[in-house]
Amino acid sequence: MMPAIKQIAIIGMGLIGGSLGLAIKASQGEKVEVTGIDTNELSMLKAKQCGAADRITADYKTGIKSADMIFVCTPVLQIATLIKEIAPHLKPGAILTDTGSTKTYLIQEITAVLPPGVHYVPGHPMAGREKSGIEAAVDTLFYDKWYILTPARDGDAAAVEAVRQVISWIGARVTEMNAAEHDWCTALISHVPHIGAAALVNLLMYLQDQENSIKLAGGGFRDTTRIASSNADMWADICMTNAEPIADSLDKFSQIVSQVAAAVRQGDRESIHKFFSSAKQRRDELLLLEQAASEQPLTNEHL
Amino acid sequence: MMPAIKQIAIIGMGLIGGSLGLAIKASQGEKVEVTGIDTNELSMLKAKQCGAADRITADYKTGIKSADMIFVCTPVLQIATLIKEIAPHLKPGAILTDTGSTKTYLIQEITAVLPPGVHYVPGHPMAGREKSGIEAAVDTLFYDKWYILTPARDGDAAAVEAVRQVISWIGARVTEMNAAEHDWCTALISHVPHIGAAALVNLLMYLQDQENSIKLAGGGFRDTTRIASSNADMWADICMTNAEPIADSLDKFSQIVSQVAAAVRQGDRESIHKFFSSAKQRRDELLLLEQAASEQPLTNEHL
Repeated sequence: MMPAIKQIAIIGMGLIGGSLGLAIKASQGEKVEVTGIDTNELSMLKAKQCGAADRITADYKTGIKSADMIFVCTPVLQIATLIKEIAPHLKPGAILTDTGSTKTYLIQEITAVLPPGVHYVPGHPMAGREKSGIEAAVDTLFYDKWYILTPARDGDAAAVEAVRQVISWIGARVTEMNAAEHDWCTALISHVPHIGAAALVNLLMYLQDQENSIKLAGGGFRDTTRIASSNADMWADICMTNAEPIADSLDKFSQIVSQVAAAVRQGDRESIHKFFSSAKQRRDELLLLEQAASEQPLTNEHL
Repeated sequence: MMPAIKQIAIIGMGLIGGSLGLAIKASQGEKVEVTGIDTNELSMLKAKQCGAADRITADYKTGIKSADMIFVCTPVLQIATLIKEIAPHLKPGAILTDTGSTKTYLIQEITAVLPPGVHYVPGHPMAGREKSGIEAAVDTLFYDKWYILTPARDGDAAAVEAVRQVISWIGARVTEMNAAEHDWCTALISHVPHIGAAALVNLLMYLQDQENSIKLAGGGFRDTTRIASSNADMWADICMTNAEPIADSLDKFSQIVSQVAAAVRQGDRESIHKFFSSAKQRRDELLLLEQAASEQPLTNEHL
C-alpha cells in the first residue's frame, strides 16, 4: 500500500528545492507540511517568505526526523555526503529521493549507507532556468516537464508510487529508466553539448583581433554561448560524478569532429554533405519522438 | 570622386538579395533603380510584387549592362562561376560586390577574370534569418547589423566608398577587415560552431533507446539543435570554399574536447573547473567587446 505523505522535507532551498516547495504547497495546501532545510540563512528566510516552506531550519536532524519523504536538492557532489550524515536520523519507512543529474554514482554511495526500512528512489527532474537560487524559484518550474526516476529493480514499489504521486502534484510527467542508461543518455544529450558549448567559447582564444572579429559573431553571440556561462563548480561536479559516460561520449564527439576536419581538408564534398544532411535528418526524427512523448497525457491525469 | 549610384543590379533574389532590394528602395525610392536578376521565375515575380526590384529579368547580360553597382547574392559556390560569365558584359567603371560568407577563395577566383575598369569590393553582411527565400525578405534585415568589407589594399578607394554608401542606405554598420583574417575569424566564430552543433546531433546516433532518452533533452532540444537543420548544400559549399581555416579550427576544437575527456577520465577536477571558468570569463570579455562595438554610432550617421 502506498504510504500517506503528510510531511515533506526539502534539503537545499535553491531553484529546484524552492520550486518544489512552492509547487507542492500550491497543489496540496494545508494537507502537506513542507519543511525547508538549508544552511544559508537568507535562502531560508526567502523560502519562508515566498511560501516555499511552512517551516525552515538549518538543523538537518530536526528537519527530517518526522518527514515521510525527503527531497535532497543540493548540488550533486554534496548529495551523497549529506545523506550519509542524515541517514541515521531518518524515521523507519521514510522515503528518500534526490534531484541529482547523475544517478549511478549516487545510487552506489547512498545504497551503502541507507538504514533498513528507509527507501531510496533516485530522481532527476528535467527542469531548470538560467537563473539559480531561491529568488528564481517558481511553482510552475516542473509543469509539463519530464521527471525521470531510476529505481532499483528490487526496490520498494510502494515507495516509487509515493514519489510518483508527489511528482504528479507538481505537474511533471514521470518516466522510469535504468540508472546506467540514464547516465549515458544524459551524457550524450545534455553533458556533452554543454561541454561542447564551453569548448567553442574557449576555442575563441585563437581569435587574433578579438575586438574586430567579435563583429563577425553577427549579434547572436550572447544567445548561442549563453550555456557557457553556467556555474563552473556545478559542471565540474557533474563531470566528476558521471565520468565514464562523459569521457567516452566526448571522445566520440571529438572523433566525429576530426572526421569532418579530414573531409574538409580533402575537399570531400560528398562526405561533408552527408554529415550535414544526416544531422538534419536525425534532428527531425528525434523531434518527432519528442513530440509524440510530450503528447502523452500528463501523469496527474492518470491518477 | 565617389561615383553616383543610380542603377543597382542584384543577382540572386533570395533572402539576402530580396532584403537588399527592399532596403535600398525603402531608403532611396525613385532615386535608385533596382534590377532583380534570378533564374527562378517565381522568385522574380515575388520580388517584383513585394517591391524588392523595379524590374526583373532572368537574363544576366541585359540585367547588368547599365548597372553602376552589382550585388551578387547567390550561394557562395555559384558566385565565382557567375561572375566569370557576366564579367565581359559589365560596363566600364561598374562596381561589383558580393555577399558570400568566405572571401579569400572568391577574391582569387574573381580577381582573375575581372575586366579592366571594373572594381570588385568583397563584402559579407552579418545578417540572416532562419527562413530563406524571397518570401522571408524584409527591408530591416541589415539594420544595425555589421556588414564586413574586405577590399584589396591596392583597390579603388572610390569604389569602396560607393559600396559603403549603399550599405549606409540599408542601415547596416560597415567595417573593413583583411580577407584572410575574415576567413579565419569566421571559421572560429561561425563555421566551427555550426559544424559542432551538427556533430552534437550526429553524436546522438549512440543513444540506445531514442524514444525514451529524448525525454532527457528537457524540452529544449528543438531550440538548442535548430542550427543543425540548416541547408546542407550551403554548408557543404562553405566548407569547400573556406577549407583550411575550417579544418584547422576543427582540429583545434577536437583537441580541446579530447583534453577535457582526458581530464574527466583522470578525475582532474581542477583542470575541469578551469575549463568551465575560463569559458565563462572569455564569454564575458567578448560580450563587453561586442557591446562596445555595437555602441559605436551607425555608419549612416557618419555620412
